[in-house]
Amino acid sequence: MTSMSEEVKLECVSLSPVSMATDPEQGPLCIFGTGDLGRSLGQRLLQAGYKVVYGSRRPHSCGPLPAGTQAMSHEAAAKSANLVFICVHREHYDFLERLAPQLVGKVLVDVSNNLKKNIYPEANAEFLQRLVPGAHVVKAFNTLSAWALQNGPSDANRQVYLCGNSVVAKQAVEETATKLGFTVLDRGSLSAARELEDFPLQLFPEWRLPIRLAVGLTAAFFFYLVIRDIIFSYVEQGKDISFRIMVSLANKVFPIVSLILLSLCYLPGVIAAFLQLYRGTKYKRFPDWLDRWMLCRKQLGLLALALASLHVLYTLIIPIRYYVRFRIAAHTISQIKENKTSEFDTTMAWRTDSYYSMGILGYGLYVLLGLSSLPSVSNSLSWREFSFIQSKLGYLTLFFCTFHTYLYGWDKFLRLSAYKWYTPPAYMLSLVVPSVVLVLRLLLFLPCMDRSLIRIRQGWERTDPENDTKKSLLT
Amino acid sequence: MTSMSEEVKLECVSLSPVSMATDPEQGPLCIFGTGDLGRSLGQRLLQAGYKVVYGSRRPHSCGPLPAGTQAMSHEAAAKSANLVFICVHREHYDFLERLAPQLVGKVLVDVSNNLKKNIYPEANAEFLQRLVPGAHVVKAFNTLSAWALQNGPSDANRQVYLCGNSVVAKQAVEETATKLGFTVLDRGSLSAARELEDFPLQLFPEWRLPIRLAVGLTAAFFFYLVIRDIIFSYVEQGKDISFRIMVSLANKVFPIVSLILLSLCYLPGVIAAFLQLYRGTKYKRFPDWLDRWMLCRKQLGLLALALASLHVLYTLIIPIRYYVRFRIAAHTISQIKENKTSEFDTTMAWRTDSYYSMGILGYGLYVLLGLSSLPSVSNSLSWREFSFIQSKLGYLTLFFCTFHTYLYGWDKFLRLSAYKWYTPPAYMLSLVVPSVVLVLRLLLFLPCMDRSLIRIRQGWERTDPENDTKKSLLT
Amino acid sequence: MTSMSEEVKLECVSLSPVSMATDPEQGPLCIFGTGDLGRSLGQRLLQAGYKVVYGSRRPHSCGPLPAGTQAMSHEAAAKSANLVFICVHREHYDFLERLAPQLVGKVLVDVSNNLKKNIYPEANAEFLQRLVPGAHVVKAFNTLSAWALQNGPSDANRQVYLCGNSVVAKQAVEETATKLGFTVLDRGSLSAARELEDFPLQLFPEWRLPIRLAVGLTAAFFFYLVIRDIIFSYVEQGKDISFRIMVSLANKVFPIVSLILLSLCYLPGVIAAFLQLYRGTKYKRFPDWLDRWMLCRKQLGLLALALASLHVLYTLIIPIRYYVRFRIAAHTISQIKENKTSEFDTTMAWRTDSYYSMGILGYGLYVLLGLSSLPSVSNSLSWREFSFIQSKLGYLTLFFCTFHTYLYGWDKFLRLSAYKWYTPPAYMLSLVVPSVVLVLRLLLFLPCMDRSLIRIRQGWERTDPENDTKKSLLT
Repeated sequence: MTSMSEEVKLECVSLSPVSMATDPEQGPLCIFGTGDLGRSLGQRLLQAGYKVVYGSRRPHSCGPLPAGTQAMSHEAAAKSANLVFICVHREHYDFLERLAPQLVGKVLVDVSNNLKKNIYPEANAEFLQRLVPGAHVVKAFNTLSAWALQNGPSDANRQVYLCGNSVVAKQAVEETATKLGFTVLDRGSLSAARELEDFPLQLFPEWRLPIRLAVGLTAAFFFYLVIRDIIFSYVEQGKDISFRIMVSLANKVFPIVSLILLSLCYLPGVIAAFLQLYRGTKYKRFPDWLDRWMLCRKQLGLLALALASLHVLYTLIIPIRYYVRFRIAAHTISQIKENKTSEFDTTMAWRTDSYYSMGILGYGLYVLLGLSSLPSVSNSLSWREFSFIQSKLGYLTLFFCTFHTYLYGWDKFLRLSAYKWYTPPAYMLSLVVPSVVLVLRLLLFLPCMDRSLIRIRQGWERTDPENDTKKSLLT
Repeated sequence: MTSMSEEVKLECVSLSPVSMATDPEQGPLCIFGTGDLGRSLGQRLLQAGYKVVYGSRRPHSCGPLPAGTQAMSHEAAAKSANLVFICVHREHYDFLERLAPQLVGKVLVDVSNNLKKNIYPEANAEFLQRLVPGAHVVKAFNTLSAWALQNGPSDANRQVYLCGNSVVAKQAVEETATKLGFTVLDRGSLSAARELEDFPLQLFPEWRLPIRLAVGLTAAFFFYLVIRDIIFSYVEQGKDISFRIMVSLANKVFPIVSLILLSLCYLPGVIAAFLQLYRGTKYKRFPDWLDRWMLCRKQLGLLALALASLHVLYTLIIPIRYYVRFRIAAHTISQIKENKTSEFDTTMAWRTDSYYSMGILGYGLYVLLGLSSLPSVSNSLSWREFSFIQSKLGYLTLFFCTFHTYLYGWDKFLRLSAYKWYTPPAYMLSLVVPSVVLVLRLLLFLPCMDRSLIRIRQGWERTDPENDTKKSLLT
Repeated sequence: MTSMSEEVKLECVSLSPVSMATDPEQGPLCIFGTGDLGRSLGQRLLQAGYKVVYGSRRPHSCGPLPAGTQAMSHEAAAKSANLVFICVHREHYDFLERLAPQLVGKVLVDVSNNLKKNIYPEANAEFLQRLVPGAHVVKAFNTLSAWALQNGPSDANRQVYLCGNSVVAKQAVEETATKLGFTVLDRGSLSAARELEDFPLQLFPEWRLPIRLAVGLTAAFFFYLVIRDIIFSYVEQGKDISFRIMVSLANKVFPIVSLILLSLCYLPGVIAAFLQLYRGTKYKRFPDWLDRWMLCRKQLGLLALALASLHVLYTLIIPIRYYVRFRIAAHTISQIKENKTSEFDTTMAWRTDSYYSMGILGYGLYVLLGLSSLPSVSNSLSWREFSFIQSKLGYLTLFFCTFHTYLYGWDKFLRLSAYKWYTPPAYMLSLVVPSVVLVLRLLLFLPCMDRSLIRIRQGWERTDPENDTKKSLLT
């Protein structure tokens, strides 16, 4: 216990020089490295009122530095400051090992990033801590762009993530970051450094699979429709209606893919429920593919929403299209010339109006789902509220949209002429998955299913003697 | 003063073992309770690199635990760790009283929730603190779903709220929560525990009244319109136009309710102003109903926006409706057959275009109001900016939308045929509240009113001698 | 070093009384000043369970105070509490200098605001700290409205910004603010006080320039179009088509200004790139106008998005306009009467459908750009992701929208009749800036340009001997 309380004292005592280091009116901050990053950061620190010294291998020939700063040897620079920014590539960290004695008790801020993930076995900051065990290494600022470091916070650069093992050292860096106008998010101990170093390298990792899926489905249905509509019409009727690609075809492909993606959001949940019912426990891990699928439901849903929005716009411009106006005029003219009077069809009016109404209500709910997944909105919801929206309202949305599509089809399911070249219309294909999801979901509402599922999710496990012995052997 | 500085030392000294407890590479964390929650949490802590021990009444028969953990008696488990998660229902807290000596100086994390609000006189965490006065109780993690506890942060489960009386203990829990990937929000001392325990139980409490109002108004206007339009037409003219329910009627009900809800957002503010003027002070509390009304203005406004959006969509699909196309064609055909030529009516063009323009501008401003009430947007505004948008632009929105409705009515106010069965058209009813609000608001712009109100809101009070003596007696 | 460690001890020892001061169950909080603010704050603190005493010049005649509080002399009030809220105008701070001995070691919370920016050489809180050097001044609560202080957090009043030199004092204030339900954002040391004091005075400062620009452009194009369309038609053809102002003209002005504003978002980036190429370095500051321009790109973009949204709505209501329906019917009727049959024009169909498609896709991307600039969304993006969206997708948006406008123009560029009164149509004028931006951007894709630019942005500098000597003299 003695060593512990000593460590406490050390922390306490070091509080004062550290907090002074971050006070602009007092001791200077030190930057190791006179490259681009070091210069940008130095300029910004100067603007915030700090004194800045640079540590350099060749202090007399290190190129132009911000006016008002000073370059000196690493040793001298380290001595003059309590907080040292390491603006050097990881490849050149070795020299710091030699400086370790001068850096004892100092706060070292590792701002480095790598060009790729996983090229080194350990995070840069952890490597640094190993090289200079006596210093307090803090990983920080690496998630900011060089532009933000030089010019202050802007859109995606408002937050400084930091991590480190010393609370006091983190406080010192936090103070400096706050001074520069950033908001600080503490990510815990230095073992989080790898995560922070990977962050700036990522480009929508969780969006890749859903986007590929959406693009793939869009392309597939596009070709399917080009063949069934454009080429069929050209081959069988000799008519060139290729102009329909731009709007009519797009307005078929987008809603179809949107509906499929939406139903794919809810399919994994249903599969998971049946898996839990079958296994009789919730403590067995789901297969990997199901886990990954469940983790990208939000992205699937948002892509579906984007496509649904395009569908809405494409639908709303229908009446101002040249083609549509021409056809309507031609129809009216031919009616007059042939002196025909078409009777008003009440069923048709009911059906089309219901069709539009379902679409609008479905889309309205859909937008609500999208809004509730905005980070700031979902953060302000309790998870009971969030799951109410995403699950209850989500299924309602799926139901409305599926019903909307069924109303679109109406009796075309039965007409043979709809099956050109023996292929079903595309919207029929889009109805398969949502219908399956809705039916399975309804099955889960059956009292026997529902009750078992609730018990399983509360931790209950179905045990049969055989299974039980197996389990105890496995665990 | 001596006792105080001793307490400080205690805090300081306890800092070290606590901070060690949260360091995954060191001592284990302890979980009391091997139920679902305990197992989920244990699994997650293991994944984050912690060692986990379970405390159990029957350590040898407590069912399957995550591989790599160990179950022992409560006493033994408590001894081995500095941070103890209490994953036990409040009903079974009693055993902790017996353990109090072993728990002195430990951090106890209360993660419990109740099934209903207000079933116990004090919060679970406060009850726990009373049972084990020597421990540092921290309320935390209870707002997360069991799923998030097991699988890490997801949409509505990114933030861990915590509260407790010991800063150091909270820091220890914060470190662990951060390690698990959550963002921590400190809600202060343990007296906030009740609020945290109520949070996961709530389901849009502040939305209930506005939603009931919106649903009630929608139903009322729906029936009113069914009677005035559908049934009237059936009874008086023998025509079945029930198909109009789906779109035409919906597109009357939604804008009407939307306009009324919007004006109800601004009515309480106006009433409050007149009340303050009448009372001559701002220090008297408003009646309860007014307070409650003012607190749900945001929800009223957002519901109104949702209905306005539906109105926009329902309006935009008008030209693609079968009924509308049929009617237009029929009109054109009849014009030709009867060889009539209708003259272009410039007034009509002005009026309808103005009507649409007002609607669009009103809706545009409306969306702006909605955007500014997104949590992340309103947080980034100063309240001067926020109140500029909500008040100035809000009244402008109300003005545009009301004017839009007046333009819709135009001269129908004077036509007797509009009053079927001696009832006014629904849109006229919708104009009552907004017109009153706008007129009252205009009255408040009168210099005499405006000046008094500003003075009152700056703290000035109108005093008459009689009143004054009363007041001094009351306070 | 001795003085330092003493300071540390002071901080440590003061921790205990301070933390007690913020514990509602213990010592009272003190408020200096019995004006509106003091009374509001006192009421709120009482509700949160605190004891409150008021310090007043005339404790016996200071008007009505919240029931349960007590007014005493400043000296007595200061003695009884550790945390003192200064609810007094800066003009009356002088008396605090006299009280300095009683305030040593106390936490003074400066909640004051000024009526205008820059009327005093130093921030109120810094002035206060100078008057009472022995106290720990914390600037806080000043960004909240009096309403929020009295009634608790609401939309734009959820966050309490604070700053101060003493970490412990800030913690005490943070605890109190959290207790009142607010979220606390630490803005660093007391030198941030001026920023906090300016915050509540600001009214969209960064929006002024873009809004003026948008309004100016809108007005200019409006008059241009009134002259070219309305007045031209009246003068040359004797027709009064002034009703077109409401929709047709608006629907020309909005997209034109929107496209220009969008391209003005991307122009400064292109100019900056060429400037860097010309100068051969990124370390020279940009001219001030360019800096200011670059800082308002987000606002320009959002205004452009708002106008584009209006354009979408104005376009979608086209088919339900009286004027349009009349014209279509008249056209159909005249076709029949003159027994003409117009041929279906496939090129026209391709062109108009492409025109709409480009518009829809451009607008869809545009909304995506807008969504990604919501604070909570942009905060959750890495800057690589953010710049991917804003730069790559941004240029794609600009391309779609520009192409949309070219398709609108089509062959009218060549028709002389389009140049009424020798002026070009307005949409042509709107194409100038976006075309220039796109061409310049394409130039930057040339390998020679691209490579130089990347090197310069990585910190490389072009040096010619002459330049070099100059630079070393300047720095």
